[in-house]
Amino acid sequence: MNETFALRGLIIDTPDIGAVRARQGFLVCEDGKVAGFFGALPGRYAGIPVADCGEHLILPGMSDLHLHAPQYSYCGTAMDLQLIDWLERYTYPEEARFADPEHARAYYAVFTRDLLHTATTRAAIFATLHTDATLELMRQLDQSGLGAFVGKLSMDRNCPKDYSEHTPENGEAETRRWLEACREAGFARVHPILTPRFTPSVSDAYMEKLGQLAREYGVPMQSHLSESLSEIEWVKSLCPDAKTYADTYARCGLFGGDCPTIMAHCIYCPEEENRMMKDGHVFIAHCPTSNENVIAGIAPAARYLRQGYEIGLGSDVAGGHTLDLFAVMAAAVQVSKLRWCCVDPGEKPLTLPEALYMATAGGGRFFGKVGLFEPGYAFDAVVIDDSANRNLRVFSPMERIERCAYLGGAKVAAKFVDGRKVL
Amino acid sequence: MNETFALRGLIIDTPDIGAVRARQGFLVCEDGKVAGFFGALPGRYAGIPVADCGEHLILPGMSDLHLHAPQYSYCGTAMDLQLIDWLERYTYPEEARFADPEHARAYYAVFTRDLLHTATTRAAIFATLHTDATLELMRQLDQSGLGAFVGKLSMDRNCPKDYSEHTPENGEAETRRWLEACREAGFARVHPILTPRFTPSVSDAYMEKLGQLAREYGVPMQSHLSESLSEIEWVKSLCPDAKTYADTYARCGLFGGDCPTIMAHCIYCPEEENRMMKDGHVFIAHCPTSNENVIAGIAPAARYLRQGYEIGLGSDVAGGHTLDLFAVMAAAVQVSKLRWCCVDPGEKPLTLPEALYMATAGGGRFFGKVGLFEPGYAFDAVVIDDSANRNLRVFSPMERIERCAYLGGAKVAAKFVDGRKVL
Repeated sequence: MNETFALRGLIIDTPDIGAVRARQGFLVCEDGKVAGFFGALPGRYAGIPVADCGEHLILPGMSDLHLHAPQYSYCGTAMDLQLIDWLERYTYPEEARFADPEHARAYYAVFTRDLLHTATTRAAIFATLHTDATLELMRQLDQSGLGAFVGKLSMDRNCPKDYSEHTPENGEAETRRWLEACREAGFARVHPILTPRFTPSVSDAYMEKLGQLAREYGVPMQSHLSESLSEIEWVKSLCPDAKTYADTYARCGLFGGDCPTIMAHCIYCPEEENRMMKDGHVFIAHCPTSNENVIAGIAPAARYLRQGYEIGLGSDVAGGHTLDLFAVMAAAVQVSKLRWCCVDPGEKPLTLPEALYMATAGGGRFFGKVGLFEPGYAFDAVVIDDSANRNLRVFSPMERIERCAYLGGAKVAAKFVDGRKVL
Repeated sequence: MNETFALRGLIIDTPDIGAVRARQGFLVCEDGKVAGFFGALPGRYAGIPVADCGEHLILPGMSDLHLHAPQYSYCGTAMDLQLIDWLERYTYPEEARFADPEHARAYYAVFTRDLLHTATTRAAIFATLHTDATLELMRQLDQSGLGAFVGKLSMDRNCPKDYSEHTPENGEAETRRWLEACREAGFARVHPILTPRFTPSVSDAYMEKLGQLAREYGVPMQSHLSESLSEIEWVKSLCPDAKTYADTYARCGLFGGDCPTIMAHCIYCPEEENRMMKDGHVFIAHCPTSNENVIAGIAPAARYLRQGYEIGLGSDVAGGHTLDLFAVMAAAVQVSKLRWCCVDPGEKPLTLPEALYMATAGGGRFFGKVGLFEPGYAFDAVVIDDSANRNLRVFSPMERIERCAYLGGAKVAAKFVDGRKVL
């Protein structure tokens, strides 16, 4: 961990929204942090190990702000179903199977292995209702060296009888048991995050208790917000006293400010919710592949990004069909073009540099100083072998990243989290 | 060619729109055609060679109804540019380079190799203005064993000075030289198709001459139609006498009927054009990845398909970013969901079985009896190794195809065109 070393090669990051910086030289790691970029290695670093990355691309590790680990096993299937059928026929039965520790161990091993081989170094993850299975996932992720916030799901209403916490009291007790176990476990880079599935699944009383636990344990929260118009109507009927959907979280102290928060989707937020998100520094997890698959709509991500909201990308597996944030970057550009064309001609589409910013610096901010190659940032880096995308043409660094996004073909040749080589 | 043989394994096709047939057994090839499917091999076939395809998927070869071969080298780049910038900075300069036979030979070799490794067995392809380079592409495709219609591009107005045929007379002479050369070449499965780029690029006089050539040589035609509203306005101003955009082709005898025709895109066709397409059995090349990338709109493909139009899928490389029709199938479902959600709630989204139908049986009809495993159809088959998509879950045949579409991971283990093994 404390070793000082350097990567040598083509080093690319996004110092600002829409700006791409591609530099040939040395990226030095000291104590798990970026010590600096140098065109030539300064004398004080003479003799440190240098890994020559040759023709590969060196990018900041990506941050996936929203995904459901137990859904990974069926991702890319059942895409023709509409949301309710999809939940009832695939999601709930699959998630319920994680009551079995053996199932959890085996399925999360596949998930963790596959996540490790993507460009993602940090992720905010929904698990299931099961404390033990969630701890199993956290253990596996921590052993892999990845950084993550992982949430035992909370759900006590509008869910199947055999996949519910049934009462606020039971939900609180189980959540507390889980938070205590996390304290004892002492994971290195994996932390708990409170995870009410979304307001329709969590009673007012349980939400209130989650707010108390957030304060008591000092933990962040993640959930879904304003993904579809019917969902917003449903929340209105379930919580007639709340001013907005966001208020169902905020009135319990679960919407930014002292409680760092990620809200997935945010497709149809009214201005009042937008103001609350901006004031509370709530992170928006923009999930463009999910926008393509779930028939809910297209989030105004370009506007959020350009107006200074906290926003990153989420794969939203398995509403999204892939863990690969390169593919999610391309989808972000694509759906924003369709939004411009079919919904809102007032906001120009996202560009790929903007999508890269969201995947790295934008989402990374939820995890601290993550996602940039600036001194003091976590040394999270991925070395990308894109030789599968080569042809007779010469491509610029940004064109190479674009081809990784649109064509795939980005093989992760090496990966570092906090300076530790995890792949 | 005349060998009788069988493939044994999981044989899947789409006998009707939206219907998927998955059968375990033997698919027999006689004289390059499908002789039949058999659960057990009949006595009359005792002793014929049987290739056991094990766990692989056996699908009809796919037909790509629209793609630009010279653009392949930069596909997946420059996606942030808008159409005119993209044409001027990437497309025209790259296409112009095919004046150099060495360039054409080298670049088309990469294209042909990569197309051969996809699930596509038949394609309708735009080349460049250059007769010799177009013949080179046709030679390479024919040698690969793939089936194709390939078009020397026609363009005499609204194009760069150094990439133009300049006059109708010059264009006609060059097109005739090319058609004569095709006759002499005697390609096995590769044929010429007249290819006015689109009405804005082809003067009325040149279009008229192309119509005469179509009749004289009995060749089909392909072009673009009603991709964007500004394009439609442009055509109106260029051809004030034409009743519709489609009429600029039809009045020259280049719109179905005796002249088999493919029209790419068809996003904003008025009812009059739709009627002409249906009456003339014009094939619509639906290009969903292009819809995502080019900011033109989303074609009403579900409506066309369900109302009995001739419709297949096109990769539209390089407006589309991939040759892989599995990925194009997923995009077809995705953009039709966004169309349903954001543009037209009156037409339910495409399903993956419908997309598979378009990729195989739907587009295949342009090439004859192609795209189904029924007796008398061309024995066009791809054997798909999807083991990269395996996990602990058991997937149905259709779920496996769906994962190939959404996740990639479909490796073409073997490929047959007219019963000839080409891979």
